[in-house]
Amino acid sequence: MPRLLILSSNSDKYAQLIESAQLPDLEITTEPEDCDIVLGEPRSIRDMLPRLSNLKWVQAIYAGVERLMDPALRRDYILTNARGVFGELMSEYVFGYLLLHEKKILERQRAQQSKQWDRTESGILRGRTMGLLGVGSIGSHLAGTAKHFGMSVHGFTRQSEACADVDVYYHEPHILEFAKRLDYLVSVLPRTADTNRIVNASLFDALPSHAIFINVGRGNAVDESALVTALNEGKIAAAVLDVTEKEPLPGDHPFWTAPNLLLSFHTSAISYPENITELLVENYQRYIEGKPLKYQVDFERGY
Amino acid sequence: MPRLLILSSNSDKYAQLIESAQLPDLEITTEPEDCDIVLGEPRSIRDMLPRLSNLKWVQAIYAGVERLMDPALRRDYILTNARGVFGELMSEYVFGYLLLHEKKILERQRAQQSKQWDRTESGILRGRTMGLLGVGSIGSHLAGTAKHFGMSVHGFTRQSEACADVDVYYHEPHILEFAKRLDYLVSVLPRTADTNRIVNASLFDALPSHAIFINVGRGNAVDESALVTALNEGKIAAAVLDVTEKEPLPGDHPFWTAPNLLLSFHTSAISYPENITELLVENYQRYIEGKPLKYQVDFERGY
Repeated sequence: MPRLLILSSNSDKYAQLIESAQLPDLEITTEPEDCDIVLGEPRSIRDMLPRLSNLKWVQAIYAGVERLMDPALRRDYILTNARGVFGELMSEYVFGYLLLHEKKILERQRAQQSKQWDRTESGILRGRTMGLLGVGSIGSHLAGTAKHFGMSVHGFTRQSEACADVDVYYHEPHILEFAKRLDYLVSVLPRTADTNRIVNASLFDALPSHAIFINVGRGNAVDESALVTALNEGKIAAAVLDVTEKEPLPGDHPFWTAPNLLLSFHTSAISYPENITELLVENYQRYIEGKPLKYQVDFERGY
Repeated sequence: MPRLLILSSNSDKYAQLIESAQLPDLEITTEPEDCDIVLGEPRSIRDMLPRLSNLKWVQAIYAGVERLMDPALRRDYILTNARGVFGELMSEYVFGYLLLHEKKILERQRAQQSKQWDRTESGILRGRTMGLLGVGSIGSHLAGTAKHFGMSVHGFTRQSEACADVDVYYHEPHILEFAKRLDYLVSVLPRTADTNRIVNASLFDALPSHAIFINVGRGNAVDESALVTALNEGKIAAAVLDVTEKEPLPGDHPFWTAPNLLLSFHTSAISYPENITELLVENYQRYIEGKPLKYQVDFERGY
């Protein structure tokens, strides 16, 4: 009989949702030694790994599972992460900030505060080009929303060209060619050895000076001091960071006060237990039927 | 031979675009007495009306044509206004402000200014309900974008139920029933005698206290002092006004400082000469073929 251990600050909520899903034969346990399945936060699971003596499958409740990627940790189980559920949240976030810039909402708020009737013309998304660093399930959703708004979409990927909403694909070594045609650059890259500082001084030099950079992937993708320089020197127009190398950001980090930089404190996509439970239910069916699970993480690639 | 008079602050741009469209037989004139077609801003056309002795057709470059609706003015010509072209601009505007609120962008900016790592949860558009006051070409476009974001759409119209993206329609006298189920209320109503103060104290009482009101139609639709009261008393959560009864807004108007009210100074939709020229070209073909023109205004209804 499959036994599930829940390791989350929302354990009660998850237990309630899973119980009402009435999964066949599943028993929820609180004994790490007892379980074959774990649902939870990567950090808590990492700490518990040595005690999970019957572990077969981990369903992470986040997209980011780098805490389980340390080569010193065991890899004798199937790891699935949370995917699919974040695309629409990321679209809301990214387009919220793009429209904030184009509609000059902060500038208009300042005009209102000084009682100025400010009819400066707004910008338009339609016809502009968004570049995606990474086109997985989140990038594909962003591409779909960009298409809804009449935009062009360029994608930079390792190899895959699977998303039909991407108009042009680029791969290594053509990242600077990719960058120079963009109005907006959005990174959805996971933290892996290959993504370290892929957004660096050369990339900021290649981007047009009116470009906006948004990071909803992981902080390691960005050379942070190069970004501060690019903003200070006007090499790009603005940046929006949901993620940073260190979180919370240290009090003396230049990001707090860099010009035209907005921070959102890793709030762009929250793991809603309802969504994650849907994933678990689907994968549990596959698990008991012996089928391949959805959203398996490759320990070598790191995502 | 059809002769066109252009009455716009962008006359040169329009002349250039129209010339490059090479419309058959069309001649651009600067003599009001000479022309049968006028393209331009409603205010300039109104002032010129007495001199337009051969007038057959006016293509307005705005959606709002109330300046030509005065019953004292002549109505012996076909009036077409700019429609279709504003839907996507309005969608960008309305969803920019909705996402601003849901993603708490202004709050996060304040947190950044005081170096607070603010992980307050963001709201989500998905699953929420937008109510449209008026479902013409702009309302229909908004409904389509709402559907893209997984929202429900309720429409309040005089009679029509033509937009497939509207889930539920309401008509008079059920406006309060319509209001009480909404998370967001968006007015796209034109200025007519029927739309005066349709958004009033009873409507604000009926809306849920978390509701956001956005006006991208015309200022006359709103009882402005009722709106200020609703914001001061927390009857609604926020309002975004692109249009007001008087524009520019007088310096002592309470809107400048009302809580949770954002102004955008009638910038949500700009008449781009490229878009308007496309309309003119299409209607000119119909005009010379004797076919009915697109987007004819009914002088009785006022839109």
